[in-house]
Amino acid sequence: MTAFSASDHAHMAHALQLAARGLHTTSPNPRVGCVLVRDGQVVGEGWHERAGEPHAEVHALRQAGEAARGATAYVTLEPCSHYGRTPPCAEALVKAGVARVIAAMQDPNPLVAGKGLSLLQSQGIAVASGLMSSEARELNVGFVSRMERNRPWVRAKVAASLDGRTALENGVSQWITSPAARRDGQQWRARACAILTGMGTVLADNPKLNVRDFDIGRQPLRVVVDSKLRTPVDAAIVDGGVLIVCADDTLPQADILRKAGVELLCLPNDNGSVDLPALMIELAKLGTNELHLEAGPTLTGEMLRLRLIDEFLLYLAPTLLGSSARGMFDIPALTAMDQRMDLEIVEVRNVGPDIRIRARPR
Amino acid sequence: MTAFSASDHAHMAHALQLAARGLHTTSPNPRVGCVLVRDGQVVGEGWHERAGEPHAEVHALRQAGEAARGATAYVTLEPCSHYGRTPPCAEALVKAGVARVIAAMQDPNPLVAGKGLSLLQSQGIAVASGLMSSEARELNVGFVSRMERNRPWVRAKVAASLDGRTALENGVSQWITSPAARRDGQQWRARACAILTGMGTVLADNPKLNVRDFDIGRQPLRVVVDSKLRTPVDAAIVDGGVLIVCADDTLPQADILRKAGVELLCLPNDNGSVDLPALMIELAKLGTNELHLEAGPTLTGEMLRLRLIDEFLLYLAPTLLGSSARGMFDIPALTAMDQRMDLEIVEVRNVGPDIRIRARPR
Repeated sequence: MTAFSASDHAHMAHALQLAARGLHTTSPNPRVGCVLVRDGQVVGEGWHERAGEPHAEVHALRQAGEAARGATAYVTLEPCSHYGRTPPCAEALVKAGVARVIAAMQDPNPLVAGKGLSLLQSQGIAVASGLMSSEARELNVGFVSRMERNRPWVRAKVAASLDGRTALENGVSQWITSPAARRDGQQWRARACAILTGMGTVLADNPKLNVRDFDIGRQPLRVVVDSKLRTPVDAAIVDGGVLIVCADDTLPQADILRKAGVELLCLPNDNGSVDLPALMIELAKLGTNELHLEAGPTLTGEMLRLRLIDEFLLYLAPTLLGSSARGMFDIPALTAMDQRMDLEIVEVRNVGPDIRIRARPR
Repeated sequence: MTAFSASDHAHMAHALQLAARGLHTTSPNPRVGCVLVRDGQVVGEGWHERAGEPHAEVHALRQAGEAARGATAYVTLEPCSHYGRTPPCAEALVKAGVARVIAAMQDPNPLVAGKGLSLLQSQGIAVASGLMSSEARELNVGFVSRMERNRPWVRAKVAASLDGRTALENGVSQWITSPAARRDGQQWRARACAILTGMGTVLADNPKLNVRDFDIGRQPLRVVVDSKLRTPVDAAIVDGGVLIVCADDTLPQADILRKAGVELLCLPNDNGSVDLPALMIELAKLGTNELHLEAGPTLTGEMLRLRLIDEFLLYLAPTLLGSSARGMFDIPALTAMDQRMDLEIVEVRNVGPDIRIRARPR
């Protein structure tokens, strides 16, 4: 285990801050930052902004120019060693004469993990990794999930009253939470690669489920679970492109939807509904790192039952709706306490008049 | 409006801290603290500990002795001017030769408000009030409620999962929240004059509803709403004395319960259930400042519907139980959002692994 100094930590923290600038834009790539330091001075810094554009290391090396020679590179993710849409960063670091490379974490892709650092080491560059690795993994929680588990990081957003109700008995749900909470929710949509909802929400609320409050230069892929293709062709979500996942694409509605530009994916399970675990794999194949689940109690409950939710983003508004109002998760009744889904609370904060709780399965 | 100095604030804050030492014990009296200051030095301090024992001012005057002459008295509540179980404090302050009296607030009893200060002023003592009055009112929120509204301050404790569920569909509720949260709940019981529950909770959980974790030298009055006198004579809550509120005390069970030492109060409303608003008045008459409501969704819901709850003490455990589990408040279904009960969140904090939210009607 390499011992890292206080200044190593400071430079890596800086690199992580740079990486976070790509929070909304790097999809499907990871967020990566790089800082080049020589003789205690930062001589170059950069971050990856958008897929197809230069990686963080390249930006930093360009900024440093000749000053990169003999420098230490702090990178939040192991430099790549393969030719993708851009040439390998490990090679660029070698060419620039960097003396040392410290990575916060290895590449989470098990097929390439360690190869970038090995390449550097074979060229006489001192390498180390693991500095602030938990922060680095957290920043790319979705990318890590896709690489390590072949499925996205699923974040379920739920907006409810303090007594856990998401809609009145008659279905009315607009609005339980405050404008501040809804705006905050937009930011979580914005960092996701895809947004998943169910047919019930489409029929009840006719949402767009796009990112509106600020311009991120892209829109997350919108995905609707709709076994029987009941999504109306004039639904708001159809406008601008949507992936509808069904259990039968021979239904008459299929062609009508296709003609409206809808992409269909047929993933039936044995019960005639959509095979959600298979959908996770498909979404990972499509490059989905973080999947933002924003649905009603049926789909959210089914995702919970299948243990497919990795994080709960819960907005609680200071209001009470009573026990006849609708709940958060429709799952089969538990008969004993030990069947419950235990979580760990990661964060609690105020958002306007509401409370936002982030929790993860324990 | 009198201008108070920084040292005035500091001394009153000190007096409020002293007053808070009586949090669990002064019932049915208010919590009161007193600090005597002469030439910038604290020469005496005291707080009221227990009904029937000396008031805060008397303790402080005894400690100060001759040094009280010419001092300023900081009191968290206007000194009393009437003979109760102890002689009036206003008189004692006059006799001791205090030069100035600053009260955080006037007596909330409209019949005597201002009389203590007037008495002092008539004897040539400089008086002022209103310094840190909101803190002072908060400390005696129950006493103020009883004096001003003729009803207790009702604090409803609810323990639930993050999705707002208080028990499984089959009624199992032990335990949703952590030992830390349950211990915290005991502290709120301990500061209450009375604890209110319903017959459903008695039958389902057979609770004692006493203060166990620490010795406060008294037990809050336990009260059960039980219209039809279905409380078993061997229920845990019967042991040690309980007030059962019914809608018909001519039922055969009435005598059996009376013989077991149960006190009965018959308060029927037109529907054959207990008249809860009338019960609040009765409990105020019995000297109940803070009423701790710890019941199931039926009674808690009915108290909510009647707008009798002043504060919600909500423990949320990081677990999910699903929509078929029981809710917090059984009230008639709302049909529009504007019928909801809007709250203001007063405090959010962690208690062990759980979250505690305090909220009040807006």
